[in-house]
Amino acid sequence: ARPKVGYIYSNKPSYSLVYDYIRKISVEEIMSKPVVVQEDTSIYDAILHLFLNDVGTLFVENNDALVGAISRKDFLKIAMGGTDMHKVPVGIIMTRMPNIVFVDPKDTAYFAAKKIIDHEVDSLPVVEKFINEGKELFKIVGKVSKTNITKIFVKLGENG
Amino acid sequence: ARPKVGYIYSNKPSYSLVYDYIRKISVEEIMSKPVVVQEDTSIYDAILHLFLNDVGTLFVENNDALVGAISRKDFLKIAMGGTDMHKVPVGIIMTRMPNIVFVDPKDTAYFAAKKIIDHEVDSLPVVEKFINEGKELFKIVGKVSKTNITKIFVKLGENG
Repeated sequence: ARPKVGYIYSNKPSYSLVYDYIRKISVEEIMSKPVVVQEDTSIYDAILHLFLNDVGTLFVENNDALVGAISRKDFLKIAMGGTDMHKVPVGIIMTRMPNIVFVDPKDTAYFAAKKIIDHEVDSLPVVEKFINEGKELFKIVGKVSKTNITKIFVKLGENG
Repeated sequence: ARPKVGYIYSNKPSYSLVYDYIRKISVEEIMSKPVVVQEDTSIYDAILHLFLNDVGTLFVENNDALVGAISRKDFLKIAMGGTDMHKVPVGIIMTRMPNIVFVDPKDTAYFAAKKIIDHEVDSLPVVEKFINEGKELFKIVGKVSKTNITKIFVKLGENG
């Protein structure tokens, strides 16, 4: 349902201003540093990276291209099972391209937030396209998470 | 840094409208259903609850009062160690009151988001105070997470 809004300075509801304001924020303004591991990293080492960097999602690359993603939830599932975490690489258990949802640095923060909610993920890789041997690949240049979105929300609510 | 804003209808920057608008959203408008387990629930059963309800944090109660919280991150740490998850109850490993950050249903969503960021948690219990035998206790009535905040952000950016 559309929120009720007052008419403040004109016939245009203030809600439109909020909308316009929010749609101007870009992914590159709010993205943070991604934590990236190689496809052959063991699950155990990957979990260490997760804890040392205190993130909820790792992105996986191979030859400088995004190939997968793996979350704290995926790792917990694996840790509950009998998998040998020292021997099995993340490449075996990660969500694999083309099933990774990603955004471009020039996309809006709104678009990224909508993708996070629609696809029920905590974090998206921010990528730049490149071509290698005629194939379209994606270099990981950042990440946008629910934390980044929550931080903008706090900033918007702060007394300027 | 304060974002640059234009002056649209008056000398007051549109940014103030965004600020005013955001400060009117309350916790009770955006909170969702909390997933609660009892203090004597085994770690293993608690993790099942986490997966079945697809949440990142469980709140723990005892005699209808909030006594603790435990996150996916805490569970992953435990699952990596040698703990017998069938025998040890969540009460042993949870973060315990008074170290739980919480909010009231009448608090603003901004206030909740700020607490989430400042205390580096994914989710806060929404509580109502009650008195039992002269002691001030808190009943869990909801939760506010980064997901709830991300959803409001998407709503604010939607074409009304």
